[in-house]
Amino acid sequence: MANFEYKGKKIYYETHGEGAPLILLNGIMMSTLSWQAFIAPLSAGNRLILLDFLDQGQSDKHSEDAYGVALQVEVLKALYDHLGLERAAIAGISYGGNVALKFASEYPALVHRLIVCNALAKTGAWLTELGKGWVMSAQDPAQFYYTTIPIIYSQEFYNARPDWVKARREFLTGQVFTNREWMDAIERLTASMDSYDAQGQLDKITAKTLLVASECDSITPAYEMCKLRDYIKGADLVLLPGTGHATMYERPALFASLIIGFANAELEGLVI
Amino acid sequence: MANFEYKGKKIYYETHGEGAPLILLNGIMMSTLSWQAFIAPLSAGNRLILLDFLDQGQSDKHSEDAYGVALQVEVLKALYDHLGLERAAIAGISYGGNVALKFASEYPALVHRLIVCNALAKTGAWLTELGKGWVMSAQDPAQFYYTTIPIIYSQEFYNARPDWVKARREFLTGQVFTNREWMDAIERLTASMDSYDAQGQLDKITAKTLLVASECDSITPAYEMCKLRDYIKGADLVLLPGTGHATMYERPALFASLIIGFANAELEGLVI
Amino acid sequence: MANFEYKGKKIYYETHGEGAPLILLNGIMMSTLSWQAFIAPLSAGNRLILLDFLDQGQSDKHSEDAYGVALQVEVLKALYDHLGLERAAIAGISYGGNVALKFASEYPALVHRLIVCNALAKTGAWLTELGKGWVMSAQDPAQFYYTTIPIIYSQEFYNARPDWVKARREFLTGQVFTNREWMDAIERLTASMDSYDAQGQLDKITAKTLLVASECDSITPAYEMCKLRDYIKGADLVLLPGTGHATMYERPALFASLIIGFANAELEGLVI
Amino acid sequence: MANFEYKGKKIYYETHGEGAPLILLNGIMMSTLSWQAFIAPLSAGNRLILLDFLDQGQSDKHSEDAYGVALQVEVLKALYDHLGLERAAIAGISYGGNVALKFASEYPALVHRLIVCNALAKTGAWLTELGKGWVMSAQDPAQFYYTTIPIIYSQEFYNARPDWVKARREFLTGQVFTNREWMDAIERLTASMDSYDAQGQLDKITAKTLLVASECDSITPAYEMCKLRDYIKGADLVLLPGTGHATMYERPALFASLIIGFANAELEGLVI
Repeated sequence: MANFEYKGKKIYYETHGEGAPLILLNGIMMSTLSWQAFIAPLSAGNRLILLDFLDQGQSDKHSEDAYGVALQVEVLKALYDHLGLERAAIAGISYGGNVALKFASEYPALVHRLIVCNALAKTGAWLTELGKGWVMSAQDPAQFYYTTIPIIYSQEFYNARPDWVKARREFLTGQVFTNREWMDAIERLTASMDSYDAQGQLDKITAKTLLVASECDSITPAYEMCKLRDYIKGADLVLLPGTGHATMYERPALFASLIIGFANAELEGLVI
Repeated sequence: MANFEYKGKKIYYETHGEGAPLILLNGIMMSTLSWQAFIAPLSAGNRLILLDFLDQGQSDKHSEDAYGVALQVEVLKALYDHLGLERAAIAGISYGGNVALKFASEYPALVHRLIVCNALAKTGAWLTELGKGWVMSAQDPAQFYYTTIPIIYSQEFYNARPDWVKARREFLTGQVFTNREWMDAIERLTASMDSYDAQGQLDKITAKTLLVASECDSITPAYEMCKLRDYIKGADLVLLPGTGHATMYERPALFASLIIGFANAELEGLVI
Repeated sequence: MANFEYKGKKIYYETHGEGAPLILLNGIMMSTLSWQAFIAPLSAGNRLILLDFLDQGQSDKHSEDAYGVALQVEVLKALYDHLGLERAAIAGISYGGNVALKFASEYPALVHRLIVCNALAKTGAWLTELGKGWVMSAQDPAQFYYTTIPIIYSQEFYNARPDWVKARREFLTGQVFTNREWMDAIERLTASMDSYDAQGQLDKITAKTLLVASECDSITPAYEMCKLRDYIKGADLVLLPGTGHATMYERPALFASLIIGFANAELEGLVI
Repeated sequence: MANFEYKGKKIYYETHGEGAPLILLNGIMMSTLSWQAFIAPLSAGNRLILLDFLDQGQSDKHSEDAYGVALQVEVLKALYDHLGLERAAIAGISYGGNVALKFASEYPALVHRLIVCNALAKTGAWLTELGKGWVMSAQDPAQFYYTTIPIIYSQEFYNARPDWVKARREFLTGQVFTNREWMDAIERLTASMDSYDAQGQLDKITAKTLLVASECDSITPAYEMCKLRDYIKGADLVLLPGTGHATMYERPALFASLIIGFANAELEGLVI
């Protein structure tokens, strides 16, 4: 419900509640609106900060085609500056997890705790080529749906929740994927992942880090999350059996409680 | 290198070598040609039998749109009749694994050993809708490639083998996906999976069964293969870490040796 | 630092901090003292309640040999009555997790949230016979150490932390396993697990439940924790890769944050 | 049914069947007798060679206390020399897997195929200290049983097969663990693992290698087997869900077929 400016672009953000700051970073097709159901639990004890990246939600569209994840890192840094934040817990999922990894590597002192869900250290050929298929299907809402959405979920969840899936399909194909401006932005966001590579800088992270991997995540497989554990000193890792890439939708209560616990626990003196 | 007729359609098959019969069943985009590199090891001690299902390879195209996996089960039964086979080991991957599961349920006495790789008990909404995306991308070879191929492989394999991947992409987009007849057949084969459901009959299987699941299989996840183990009495299960749906390409030596060992071992007296 | 009486026995407990009640239940060789490092983080936002079961720590020894886990369930119920608790979050590890499962099944209305780490639905022959080896080694402190302690940890942790392991071995063999009264109590506690079976009643649990399984847990393997997920309606499960049975020592920060988050998150309205 | 001499000690071995040589190496408490049920399937197409290591079965006892796994490597080399073997497939489980790893590292040209089940690259503190508990319990047959045997099996198998377990317990405690000479030999064999370390030499292995890991293996956990895959160039790995350390007893048919397939498949030309 507020904006700030970054290099001439309007950036939209929201804050909810009081307490230690907790920033939540969106996946690629998400926006601040996607977190509606999570606002109450995540702002109960924290000052929850939601952010639309450039080309997301109510933030401005990017005028040029080519940018990288590094640009969104700077957008996040500008949010810190705008709010005068000295330090915050950051939780990011998918695209937002990648931004979080890069931000915590470049600005380690600004991150109190880091919670990274369903992300990876760097983009490989597989992910780039999957993205090509996404972009090529973007002209037709139904086709874009079938190309991009089922793979985001575990088969177990998708098959068990036909009503939820149907409502979501109708919403996405009826109101979202028909929006040409939105689709163009998604193409640019997708392309911004092509050059993503945080691997070599992850050893700069000083924040206590929780990695949340999902066993049935086809986009950022548990295998890649295990690599992150090796790169980030002292990182903790949990694996969610039977869960796909969209952890927040498949395990909402668990997702919220993992963030709340890890962002807020006073762990500094906890030495065994 | 031979044909027989099934309900007016020509069905193509090959036999290689001498010994106990071993039938190898193709995945959906495969044909007898796909097994070129496997013929030597798999026919060294067996009479290896390769088969193009209806709408595959050198078998006839199906004239009507709608058929189910059950039709391919009958094609396989006709092959038994044509060759006068009393009993054979069957190994099937993906689509061929599903046909094998259904065949072994309906004709248990005809199956000496059953080896099922990267298959599942029944088609759910997830798989059907993924298939819709495949069919909708079929007009453009490059788009069809990016929509259907990366997801078949593990990211680990795909990222580690850029030359192999590139050669395959050029071959598929240059010579295969440009073939309209071939693409139409793939659409029918894909559609034939929509009604697939072997779950309720799997307890009829009497053959010793080996299930080969791949940890990073996004199409027929290990989770679904574990269910098969529960449905098939006494089935053994192996899980291949770091491997995707295309087990035969990602782990060719392991794939061949699993089949050779399980198809041929004299296990009947092996009681501990 | 306080006591109450249960059937003529003194039961010791402690409370720390203010807030929603959170009860922490000990593993079999543990006591309220074992949680020293966890008191600060776990009482920062909660009224943390620690309890020595009968035959543990500063609670009375049990006079007779034979009792079951059900007795400790009643001890816990008596604690609720003594403190006038209407409802509390309960977190239990190992033996304490088993008590928690049975308590939440028998007194569902008293449990706000249930967090069960490294436990199982019922004792099988394997666990009973492992316990026999433990009891038979109890006459010699060093032998008891080597028989019972390494197996509690993952090899990864045990091999990586030689100094910690050495200090613990010296403490246990020098001051704990030499205490005859303590050892007799451990034998009774171990024997109390022989008849443990909560499986048939787990469907009575109404509390939101988090199951914390460890990949390298040799005592209560992840496989058994997965069964709990099937028995408890809506239970969430996290798997901790590279972790053994002693999750609290191997991953203290993660352990604490999982409990804090799941015990306190306001999840009731969180419907996706 | 034959012997040869190694440094003044009689070494017992057996050969069964005709064909390419396949050597099977025992776990620590095993002997050539343990393979009784496997002789038929494993010698059906191979010249199967069984061997009692020094201090095992019908081979001589070792006169001094201290030796290492390297000594058994030399015993195996002497067997090659005695039989005039130029090259053989080797399959080893547990202790025999460790000998096989070290042998294939030191004599790579002598190994056609390497199949390693439930082994590890080097002994750590955890394994050494577990072994201390075993040795300390050795005076009492029942105690030795409960200390060493349940942990070798998965809980799933042990709990599901009470009759088999009971018969085995009676046999071991009645006829084996009562044999003082046998027990002394087991102590020496156990001690020979203390100095085991093949890690630094595994890159010398040139044989095609199959690693068979069991998900519920508490002695040589899957985690350690995954490390072997990283150390041995091109090694294939299969994971057996729901299986413990004693893979040969828990999955006899699968165990035999994995060996037969991998030892014999003609994989050299199999390039994809």
